[in-house]
Amino acid sequence: MTRKIILDCDPGHDDAVAIILAGGNDKIDLLGITTVGGNQTLPKVTHNALSVLRVARLTEVPVFAGCARPLVRDVEVAEGIHGDSGLDGVELPEPVTSVGDQHAVDFIIETVMANEPHTVTLVPTGPLTNIALAVRKEPRLAERVQEVVLMGGGYHTGNWSAVAEFNIKVDPEAAHIVFNEKWPLTMVGLDLTHQALATPEVEEDIRGIGSQCSEFVLGLFGFFRQAYKEQQGFDNPPVHDPCTIAYLIDPSVVSTRKVPLDVELNGTLTVGMTVADFRAPAPDGCTTQVAVKLDHAAFWKMVVDSIRAVETR
Amino acid sequence: MTRKIILDCDPGHDDAVAIILAGGNDKIDLLGITTVGGNQTLPKVTHNALSVLRVARLTEVPVFAGCARPLVRDVEVAEGIHGDSGLDGVELPEPVTSVGDQHAVDFIIETVMANEPHTVTLVPTGPLTNIALAVRKEPRLAERVQEVVLMGGGYHTGNWSAVAEFNIKVDPEAAHIVFNEKWPLTMVGLDLTHQALATPEVEEDIRGIGSQCSEFVLGLFGFFRQAYKEQQGFDNPPVHDPCTIAYLIDPSVVSTRKVPLDVELNGTLTVGMTVADFRAPAPDGCTTQVAVKLDHAAFWKMVVDSIRAVETR
Amino acid sequence: MTRKIILDCDPGHDDAVAIILAGGNDKIDLLGITTVGGNQTLPKVTHNALSVLRVARLTEVPVFAGCARPLVRDVEVAEGIHGDSGLDGVELPEPVTSVGDQHAVDFIIETVMANEPHTVTLVPTGPLTNIALAVRKEPRLAERVQEVVLMGGGYHTGNWSAVAEFNIKVDPEAAHIVFNEKWPLTMVGLDLTHQALATPEVEEDIRGIGSQCSEFVLGLFGFFRQAYKEQQGFDNPPVHDPCTIAYLIDPSVVSTRKVPLDVELNGTLTVGMTVADFRAPAPDGCTTQVAVKLDHAAFWKMVVDSIRAVETR
Amino acid sequence: MTRKIILDCDPGHDDAVAIILAGGNDKIDLLGITTVGGNQTLPKVTHNALSVLRVARLTEVPVFAGCARPLVRDVEVAEGIHGDSGLDGVELPEPVTSVGDQHAVDFIIETVMANEPHTVTLVPTGPLTNIALAVRKEPRLAERVQEVVLMGGGYHTGNWSAVAEFNIKVDPEAAHIVFNEKWPLTMVGLDLTHQALATPEVEEDIRGIGSQCSEFVLGLFGFFRQAYKEQQGFDNPPVHDPCTIAYLIDPSVVSTRKVPLDVELNGTLTVGMTVADFRAPAPDGCTTQVAVKLDHAAFWKMVVDSIRAVETR
Repeated sequence: MTRKIILDCDPGHDDAVAIILAGGNDKIDLLGITTVGGNQTLPKVTHNALSVLRVARLTEVPVFAGCARPLVRDVEVAEGIHGDSGLDGVELPEPVTSVGDQHAVDFIIETVMANEPHTVTLVPTGPLTNIALAVRKEPRLAERVQEVVLMGGGYHTGNWSAVAEFNIKVDPEAAHIVFNEKWPLTMVGLDLTHQALATPEVEEDIRGIGSQCSEFVLGLFGFFRQAYKEQQGFDNPPVHDPCTIAYLIDPSVVSTRKVPLDVELNGTLTVGMTVADFRAPAPDGCTTQVAVKLDHAAFWKMVVDSIRAVETR
Repeated sequence: MTRKIILDCDPGHDDAVAIILAGGNDKIDLLGITTVGGNQTLPKVTHNALSVLRVARLTEVPVFAGCARPLVRDVEVAEGIHGDSGLDGVELPEPVTSVGDQHAVDFIIETVMANEPHTVTLVPTGPLTNIALAVRKEPRLAERVQEVVLMGGGYHTGNWSAVAEFNIKVDPEAAHIVFNEKWPLTMVGLDLTHQALATPEVEEDIRGIGSQCSEFVLGLFGFFRQAYKEQQGFDNPPVHDPCTIAYLIDPSVVSTRKVPLDVELNGTLTVGMTVADFRAPAPDGCTTQVAVKLDHAAFWKMVVDSIRAVETR
Repeated sequence: MTRKIILDCDPGHDDAVAIILAGGNDKIDLLGITTVGGNQTLPKVTHNALSVLRVARLTEVPVFAGCARPLVRDVEVAEGIHGDSGLDGVELPEPVTSVGDQHAVDFIIETVMANEPHTVTLVPTGPLTNIALAVRKEPRLAERVQEVVLMGGGYHTGNWSAVAEFNIKVDPEAAHIVFNEKWPLTMVGLDLTHQALATPEVEEDIRGIGSQCSEFVLGLFGFFRQAYKEQQGFDNPPVHDPCTIAYLIDPSVVSTRKVPLDVELNGTLTVGMTVADFRAPAPDGCTTQVAVKLDHAAFWKMVVDSIRAVETR
Repeated sequence: MTRKIILDCDPGHDDAVAIILAGGNDKIDLLGITTVGGNQTLPKVTHNALSVLRVARLTEVPVFAGCARPLVRDVEVAEGIHGDSGLDGVELPEPVTSVGDQHAVDFIIETVMANEPHTVTLVPTGPLTNIALAVRKEPRLAERVQEVVLMGGGYHTGNWSAVAEFNIKVDPEAAHIVFNEKWPLTMVGLDLTHQALATPEVEEDIRGIGSQCSEFVLGLFGFFRQAYKEQQGFDNPPVHDPCTIAYLIDPSVVSTRKVPLDVELNGTLTVGMTVADFRAPAPDGCTTQVAVKLDHAAFWKMVVDSIRAVETR
């Protein structure tokens, strides 16, 4: 059975891989891509999404632009990690499609409400501004979506502060809204995605494909490797966002644990922290879970296969 | 010259008077009413708006429902002040019109964008959730509206805490968004509206009209008087919301002062406080001002006249 | 009847005047001076206290040094207002006495506990670090002192932020401790002390004395006038600290109002604000009050008389 | 070489074991015990300390009472874990010694200043109120002590909230003071002490001793086992406090890791969290470290030996 998803993203190197994986796997029906200011500004990440769709031969996937800035806080981008374009490391092909007229928030609402209940999954891999606005504008979303599987946060790991991750920290109020709605929510956080390392062996496998898309991904990984080395001391860069898609394709690739989650809005040191309460077994009715362990080999096989699949389209 | 306005409200006794004043004065072109959960729940205040429009013979004014809850915090209503219906004290007539299909946020955006720049004024008299969502969904609003004239906050006066007012305190994040946008903003806060007291003399003037609408307003004031006496120790109830309309009809009725404003989101004692910085003259380019002094007689003359005008429609 | 006091201060131009007033009035029995880091660093303000005592011919008054830094926050001094020495504007005479061996906190505790209950008043005119430490080390202080009359805070006025005053803002945790103890507490805040302006007429009166001490005070006022003009836009400088002493000499000079008080520790915009709740009459058992109105003429007559009295010692 | 220590504690079941271990091991020279309100009120924990010293035949160790309450926050005790007496589960023997006249804060200051620099270690196992007051009253402590080895906090584990531990959460301002001073500081937090489980095998070993003291400890463990089972779902109770002493006796029993530490004061969900920044290797000059891994067998052998040693005194 395929999973209908809306990918709400801010490409971004790892978002690009998430797009390729979502578009290149039969288990995923990518209804549309919505963009949000995050890794770079909204115009840049929207352009990047269209460029990636061309490279991935997914030009039938519609793209809708959403919020250019966080709900309450000032704009903060991750230029040190993603470069000036948001996808530094490659020459970006000019898009052959255009962004849709509709606002991302309205596309999300209309798509979810037009489909059967519990058949559309939201997959945010950037700040949660669009998703928060959508569920505040249309509260029935909370009961209508199948689930929310997001990249963001971390229960024992931070990157944008000691205990907070970028996507959550730049718009913690939006995250607070999303984490406190009643939909089933899976947090694929840094604890998991720091296992999704693009090792030299992974790069070797991708290089073996020898296509335009594989070269594109290798270009992205080259910049990403350097940036993560310099900015955060990683030997191999963690490719966060496609872990959400991998989990939806095959849940056995990402093991999870039920736990109550919430988002800190006020801490001096902890603002934007995703607070997981592991003190007791998750209570009955707990709707939140965290991703814990990645099957590295299976994950990267999926990704490599999806890059290879581009040539067959 | 008439002023085109959208009244974003949560009727509410004083909101009802604001509707009557806005509808019954030639200087105001009431483009529409949008509703927001506040004094009571969204369904109740939306119903109340439609009822008041019938009483005020303003059934041509469209009504659009907006957000049922604050952005981040839990719902809190002012039942002690406005009663179970939100308009206790009168028998509410059944509405003869219906709420529009459009979401309040979209009505606000489309109306402002469809009119000439700087010709539409937003007049929020409830929590600022709709306005915040609108400007986040359509950032061009901030440059397109003429101004924002809101009832809420207070620079030296609180009611929902020692230093915070209800409309701001129940959705401080929305208020933070609205107060920090670049549009011209006038805060008609408690410092001003606690001067807008419905004295026995005012009631006498209204009684003299002897119409269905005047009886309706007297019924509202009867309950409001009792509630404000019991809940906050007032001898005469402050009728907050129409002060915004009075200011738009004739700015000389409400004197103002330029001052930088912001909204506290984190304080233990001060969350929802509207912080005005009076330490120095307002800097050049300051876009915010506060209402300081009400011309009590002129204000109530306007209100009484607007109640009288209903019969002529 | 004389009032026994301990003056806990950080001289500081206005602290110097408080010392002169306290030492030169029969109604005050100045048991000792304790110093705290505030307007300038602890070594400087301690040296300044000893210098002022020489000028004021009060060398029998013992001085004890206390805390060099706030409880939790980093040190912040008011160099823009008080200069590099803490008493810029005069040539400081070399002290002829020395600071005592005892820690200020222990002097406060021992003095209060050695005197009859309810006979010693604490008069803090700097950050409340010493007083907070004293009452935490010896909780019985709270029932033993006569009262606490402090300069700091403001119910509608700020200087170190829009809504916070220097003494409270630099050590809000200490202030929170002091404001929440059960002793009678009078807050002589900016609302009052901004009425205590050293006008040219006041200076003229002081000049008429023609003593070493009057010249010293005029030197202080000259610098203070300039600093307040440049830093905060005042035409005449507010001489805050002696208002506490004036109130103790003759309560009719400073009218007060009972009101619950607390200190904000967490606000982004409001940290260090002294929050007064004026929404209802102060409840029975309310132990806190604020100074509201100064008798300007009577106040300055007291101060001028105390400067004149120096020559008679 | 023996280590001179001052044990600042709030007995408390595990504090009692810490006392027995500190008193019964040649490597430790227990200069004195200071008490602080924490697990139970100050009078109770002070009485308990004296009782334990009688049981442990350590009546030569002086005891000094300190602070009865946290710096800023209201008193909160751990009655669910330690019972009404603070040492429920045993009949407490009447003390044969008395508490000293000196305040704990002054005993700490005088003892550290009277000994050679860097020869006295502070071992707090309760809230950090006494230690914070001591270093604020005598700032030279920060350079004079050898180190601070404390039980409290946790880098990935909470018990009094999802992410905060009791000792830190009940007086976070004191903890903030202690964690931000420049002394070498080892945090023996829940991550470590949840490894110090009193298993049935451990109890069996203690039972084999067959002394008054071993029966006393078994009584304590019986209550502690039940309380931790009911309150926090543990199969075996974690015996936190003696881990600090074990580390001082033999650092190889508790492995540590250098990491910057701080204490959150403002978070809604995270107040009292000890925030460790593991994102990069600890910078040069980092003075803080966390306990990571316990040698369970070696630890319990130490404890059992110390209980056995009581009989030889």
